Amino acid sequence: MPLPKLTLVLGGAASGKSAFAENLVLQSGNAPVYLATAQVFDDEMAEKVTRHRNMRGAGWTTIEQPLDLGTALANITPQQTVLIDCATLWLTNVILGDHDVADHTNALLTSIVACQGPVVVVSNEVGQGIVPDNALSRKFRNAQGGLNQQIAAEADLVVAVMAGLPLTLKGRFP
Amino acid sequence: MPLPKLTLVLGGAASGKSAFAENLVLQSGNAPVYLATAQVFDDEMAEKVTRHRNMRGAGWTTIEQPLDLGTALANITPQQTVLIDCATLWLTNVILGDHDVADHTNALLTSIVACQGPVVVVSNEVGQGIVPDNALSRKFRNAQGGLNQQIAAEADLVVAVMAGLPLTLKGRFP
Amino acid sequence: MPLPKLTLVLGGAASGKSAFAENLVLQSGNAPVYLATAQVFDDEMAEKVTRHRNMRGAGWTTIEQPLDLGTALANITPQQTVLIDCATLWLTNVILGDHDVADHTNALLTSIVACQGPVVVVSNEVGQGIVPDNALSRKFRNAQGGLNQQIAAEADLVVAVMAGLPLTLKGRFP
Repeated sequence: MPLPKLTLVLGGAASGKSAFAENLVLQSGNAPVYLATAQVFDDEMAEKVTRHRNMRGAGWTTIEQPLDLGTALANITPQQTVLIDCATLWLTNVILGDHDVADHTNALLTSIVACQGPVVVVSNEVGQGIVPDNALSRKFRNAQGGLNQQIAAEADLVVAVMAGLPLTLKGRFP
Repeated sequence: MPLPKLTLVLGGAASGKSAFAENLVLQSGNAPVYLATAQVFDDEMAEKVTRHRNMRGAGWTTIEQPLDLGTALANITPQQTVLIDCATLWLTNVILGDHDVADHTNALLTSIVACQGPVVVVSNEVGQGIVPDNALSRKFRNAQGGLNQQIAAEADLVVAVMAGLPLTLKGRFP
Repeated sequence: MPLPKLTLVLGGAASGKSAFAENLVLQSGNAPVYLATAQVFDDEMAEKVTRHRNMRGAGWTTIEQPLDLGTALANITPQQTVLIDCATLWLTNVILGDHDVADHTNALLTSIVACQGPVVVVSNEVGQGIVPDNALSRKFRNAQGGLNQQIAAEADLVVAVMAGLPLTLKGRFP
């Protein structure tokens, strides 16, 4: 099943969103490219990265790039489908690096629109809990909500994943 | 598109629920009234109020009322549509003011049902994170969940918003 | 309306998921059995248990079992429908008792599949807030997400509840 130009897969932590997105990419018929935004600072993240890599299995080209996704996206060919996993870790890197969120978001969206292959973005829903008690977390969830809205506005297909099951919010599930 | 008597727009923080609700009100054909429940205690809330006001633009009648919405709702005419933004800040004001939640909720629902114009209520989903570690937050999310259920039971139309996109939970999207 | 073999009812805190699940069980035509996993350690939980019991009303057979649900499920007859309320408290008991999550989950799923009457499981969505700042909460929400995915994969019907309203994620609402 061919994928449209831009797909957003939204979900909570451990919702199965990455596995769902990987299946979409694998079923697109194009060569799968995994654009990993995680920065490994501790054992917990190292374990998660290893677990996700094993889950994906062979056949993927993996590019590790925590911040500037422009170059990687510019090199994608029409015969490839790229999975950005995930926008939440990318946004974390933007904010913790004290970069401008609006500038980096606009640059990312421009790169996504210009990409020659289909793009699938995985992102977290983080706004459905109680108000966090620290200002950085509140800033982060506002930025994450805004980023999700901006990607969703550009996307042809938006799917929320809950307990591994998809719920289509925009477009038609291929 | 005319709106039914009562619409509930649910969503997480920064989900785009207010912008979505404002569009509903503007498209209702009635004169838009904004019933603001925010109390400005700090710069963060002041910035949010200003940002929302700019987003709404001109044409709205704004009423600021943190707690007793009955008088404002009683003055709405059949040629107006009123947006209560939001039930979450209203509930915060009820709880922080140490008022009775059940009494105030019943009074609010009575006022909404008696209102002569269509009412749109914006409210937060706050129960899909991890259990908060303080009792006030747990009390708040239980009260918020109960309030959302009560409004939803009265509502003709209930829409959840995620990444700016609507998902109809009850009724038909106009 | 007869229920399929396994139904999962997902929702946030105070979303109305238990009341919704109880109605499903009552409408199944079978004798209702309530399999309660709560352990009462404090007044807050005692109050919750009492409130839920009053909400259910008479007519239910109640079994209290915090951890090993196998025996209770093995005793269910084809003329009964059993409600497990809830998988989240069960998982809390597994983790706080320092038991192996994977082993206990597999045993639970085996018991559910072997149960002679329809099973309805209530579980929480806990992954849509900001990342918790303590490791145990992060471990818990990962385990909860994984458990929800595993139950959902086995289930014939999966319903998310928000503000008391159902959203079907899998199967057909009976």
